[in-house]
Amino acid sequence: MEFGIQFFPDVGPDEKPADQYWQESLALVDLADELGYRHVRTVEHYFHRYGGYSPNPVVFLAAAAQRTRRARLVTGAILPVFNHPLKIAGEIGMLDAISGGRLDVGFARAFLPHEFRRFGRSLDESRARFDEGVEQVRRLLEEENVTATGAFHAFRNVTSLPRPTQRPRPPFWIAASSSDESFVQAGRLGHGIMTFPRSTAQVGRWLGLYRQAWREAGHPGSGRAMIAFHMYCAPTRAEAYDAARERVNAYIRSMVEAGSDWGTGTTSKDYPNHPQTLESLKKASFDSQVANGGCWVGSPSELRDMIAAYQTAVGGFESASLQINFHTLSLAAAEASMRLFAREVMPKFAAA
Amino acid sequence: MEFGIQFFPDVGPDEKPADQYWQESLALVDLADELGYRHVRTVEHYFHRYGGYSPNPVVFLAAAAQRTRRARLVTGAILPVFNHPLKIAGEIGMLDAISGGRLDVGFARAFLPHEFRRFGRSLDESRARFDEGVEQVRRLLEEENVTATGAFHAFRNVTSLPRPTQRPRPPFWIAASSSDESFVQAGRLGHGIMTFPRSTAQVGRWLGLYRQAWREAGHPGSGRAMIAFHMYCAPTRAEAYDAARERVNAYIRSMVEAGSDWGTGTTSKDYPNHPQTLESLKKASFDSQVANGGCWVGSPSELRDMIAAYQTAVGGFESASLQINFHTLSLAAAEASMRLFAREVMPKFAAA
Repeated sequence: MEFGIQFFPDVGPDEKPADQYWQESLALVDLADELGYRHVRTVEHYFHRYGGYSPNPVVFLAAAAQRTRRARLVTGAILPVFNHPLKIAGEIGMLDAISGGRLDVGFARAFLPHEFRRFGRSLDESRARFDEGVEQVRRLLEEENVTATGAFHAFRNVTSLPRPTQRPRPPFWIAASSSDESFVQAGRLGHGIMTFPRSTAQVGRWLGLYRQAWREAGHPGSGRAMIAFHMYCAPTRAEAYDAARERVNAYIRSMVEAGSDWGTGTTSKDYPNHPQTLESLKKASFDSQVANGGCWVGSPSELRDMIAAYQTAVGGFESASLQINFHTLSLAAAEASMRLFAREVMPKFAAA
Repeated sequence: MEFGIQFFPDVGPDEKPADQYWQESLALVDLADELGYRHVRTVEHYFHRYGGYSPNPVVFLAAAAQRTRRARLVTGAILPVFNHPLKIAGEIGMLDAISGGRLDVGFARAFLPHEFRRFGRSLDESRARFDEGVEQVRRLLEEENVTATGAFHAFRNVTSLPRPTQRPRPPFWIAASSSDESFVQAGRLGHGIMTFPRSTAQVGRWLGLYRQAWREAGHPGSGRAMIAFHMYCAPTRAEAYDAARERVNAYIRSMVEAGSDWGTGTTSKDYPNHPQTLESLKKASFDSQVANGGCWVGSPSELRDMIAAYQTAVGGFESASLQINFHTLSLAAAEASMRLFAREVMPKFAAA
């Protein structure tokens, strides 16, 4: 299993200004290669402290590419619903060039009604726009002189530039966290899968569906799964909990707030489970997340056990993407945690 | 007067692959602060070797921000016609944060019919989309809770994130090169002006209109003008011409090719002069460009005289943006030219 770091800004201007947030993040990126973190990842969100400092992950990753030589750069994830496929393909080509072929491209459907509303997009078109967008971007990267007549975007005779550095294109990942269909589709198409901790039973079942679809489609191996976790590692549990508990709780509250429309009557055929997911999330907390293994906070020995147990419970996965500077956590604290985790926890899994 | 460097990729995959082009460019960016170049600039173009390696200038500038500490990062220019204002504002906020407030934002209308066609945009909407886009982006940067009901984009109650690092926002520049109206408008609005060498009489007249409109609107000072030049400096004229002549000619040919629709019957009320401009461009060459002062190629002493003459002829300007690695010029040649220019030419103008 490999470990990487994920930047999910979860602060507003009154909590940590964006220049401070991103420059601290870049200082942490500086440690990635040295400490053996294998990827740097960031999100696409808008207009709210829940992720809103990162409206285009490619922009931050282009900067991060200059602070690393080995780490992969991972969009986690690009949202085709809010972007023109010609722009996405072009930006992928640029970042793949600038990073010397270190880009991994994750795509997601998005799920926050406020973002759809502000961009003037219908939630009910989410899946159709996603499927069309990913396919158009794939063709623009792999082929020349592409003509596409989609329901949402059409273009004729386009050769996207830059041509990708990785041939035929950077690896694709699909983010999924609520429907079986998304996991099956990602496996069938031969893409990696990105998800988030739910119950380990649920995640294990989803990864099983994914790997089964992968194998049934005849792809070699059994696919690649990346799961995102909050991580804070300190010498003792008490220190770790003190630093992380209220900040993880703040993250959960910000997610509830950003998705609050799901609790006030918004529904969509493309998001049948989201009103219920919001209700579950309202009951979630740092303590419940730690208990179900989805929040890696504790001493090194506790984390070693927690990670091993998580791997067993979900049937194994390939990549853990760690939120290391969540909410208002200080740069010094995040750095100490990254270093301790790299020294005391990662070696146990590196050989696996 | 200040000098900066501009990256205008003008190669296709068969001439120089994008990873090589951008990584050489970043190696040249490394020299900017050391040698006293005050900005790093790049373009937005698509689908053709004329600029097409740079479909989003913000992506390269985010990388360049990590290789510099003082140089300004300049979009030269963002094209609102092909981008959602919510994306532009968000990306500006990210890059301003990542660069610690070193961003200057240039906007342009775009002018290549093939780009409009592939994005499904009408040339006749160019000015309207530009005006609306720049104004919406300005409001998204300066204000919170923005509601806008434009002809092309509408949104309600949006607070763009990240909020800009520079307050109220990064400086704006308007690119113009064919109509009086654009120069007057930029001056009236208090933005900088970006242009390209035409006859010095024409440029001088335009800058006069710009500065007059600037003063009449009551803005302090007399505005800021940035002009882009090909630059190659070598110990002797013969060496300089040998390296630059055919490469500048290739640039001109690629521009003619990219804009060829203007010669085959395409017309637009928003581009009344472009068919004629294309015809003039077909007759242009390295030698004609050098003769009219728009191409700074020669020995250090020649360049000192040429630049001083250009300044006098156009009535002075604030910033020269130098294309230093045009077409297939090698990294070593571009670096030697940058160094020689910084040592032998820039000091004459630094005191001005």
